[in-house]
Amino acid sequence: MVFSWFRSRKRGIITPTLKPRVDKIEREERVDLADMTPDVVPFLAQVAYFELAVFESLTRAVSDSPTLNAKEGLSSVAGDALMKHHGLVAELRKKKVDPADAMAPFAPAIDRFEQLTVGRDWYETLLGVYLTAGFLDDFFARLVTGLPRALAPRIAELLETDRNAEIIVPLLTEGMAANPTLSSRLAVWGRRLVGDTQLVARSALQMSGNKDDDEQRLEPVFTDLIAAHSRRMDGLGLTA
Amino acid sequence: MVFSWFRSRKRGIITPTLKPRVDKIEREERVDLADMTPDVVPFLAQVAYFELAVFESLTRAVSDSPTLNAKEGLSSVAGDALMKHHGLVAELRKKKVDPADAMAPFAPAIDRFEQLTVGRDWYETLLGVYLTAGFLDDFFARLVTGLPRALAPRIAELLETDRNAEIIVPLLTEGMAANPTLSSRLAVWGRRLVGDTQLVARSALQMSGNKDDDEQRLEPVFTDLIAAHSRRMDGLGLTA
Repeated sequence: MVFSWFRSRKRGIITPTLKPRVDKIEREERVDLADMTPDVVPFLAQVAYFELAVFESLTRAVSDSPTLNAKEGLSSVAGDALMKHHGLVAELRKKKVDPADAMAPFAPAIDRFEQLTVGRDWYETLLGVYLTAGFLDDFFARLVTGLPRALAPRIAELLETDRNAEIIVPLLTEGMAANPTLSSRLAVWGRRLVGDTQLVARSALQMSGNKDDDEQRLEPVFTDLIAAHSRRMDGLGLTA
Repeated sequence: MVFSWFRSRKRGIITPTLKPRVDKIEREERVDLADMTPDVVPFLAQVAYFELAVFESLTRAVSDSPTLNAKEGLSSVAGDALMKHHGLVAELRKKKVDPADAMAPFAPAIDRFEQLTVGRDWYETLLGVYLTAGFLDDFFARLVTGLPRALAPRIAELLETDRNAEIIVPLLTEGMAANPTLSSRLAVWGRRLVGDTQLVARSALQMSGNKDDDEQRLEPVFTDLIAAHSRRMDGLGLTA
């Protein structure tokens, strides 16, 4: 079993200490999933591939931008995802891991997810990236505390590089102001996306094997993540 | 006339000094075109838009990559172009210029150029970006010495950020090794591109109005630029 192999490798080699890697205080501030964090290499690789996929979705939105202003702004958002991707790839290289080899196992699921969230037009693509990358960046951040202490702060900082995502909000609200039917279409689209996004998040976790325990552990985290999703929808004037 | 308006604005406001902006020594090291550099804002804006177009071409190549390794490598090359674009946009903002407004006049010609150089497949796209961005980055670098002294070193450094372009070479040579007919197709494509690229370069210059003088001034520069183009073709095993 892949999960138990990751687990034993992590327990045995990566963190050969019994000291808990997450303080009680940190844990109380924000519900995280440190005990479900996969091994370092698969974690870095899947987030790296995810950011590359976000970058690709955004570059399509850059190319299809109706104005040069939108193109310019979205290229900054794409730059954030690319910077995260390259930062994670650099960490894989430091570990003498070939990034392409490490990312390959995660490509099919993330590519399929990207296909599901591509949207029928520029606005749906923008909303798709904004909501799914918002959700999953937030989710991956909760796994960072489960990484080795020497690595976690660097990865936390890298994943917080999201200076430009809010550029998407006025692009969507201007579109909805100009076209009243767009709002209801985007509301449906936003509600649909959250299901697939949660499935991707769950598949990234290292479960204990005890289904009831796992569900109990996950429930408050997903409640938080969905609340953040609803706030993003609200910020766009959409009902989640 | 647009050129004479740029000229009078530059002479009158941006550089109200008679001190030559380029030393004799610099000029002898590399033939440059400092006296044909457009005004600061149009210069920054057209290079910014050009880098955005290079970024877009590369993102298409990223998406169409046949391997994850190629995708990863090309995303770094795209990142270089994006960094140049954002650096130039930041300089425009420092001057309280709206980047989209400043870039707009240059969009049609550069978009048309991008269409001409897009290629029929992934390999042609890669060769197109490698050759045309190589040529035009080299060309724009020769105009940088004509910018105000306070700005020129920053822009020179920004435009030299090209750490990753050589990643394209093995992608092309591997493709040609696997498919012998690709070499002759790419050789034809490479020779075709150089004409359109020179036209774009010429259109960026601020000519004196005296055609004979201008041609005499340009001839050694274009000889240099074409020699560099031939070296890039040689490096790929293609006859220029």
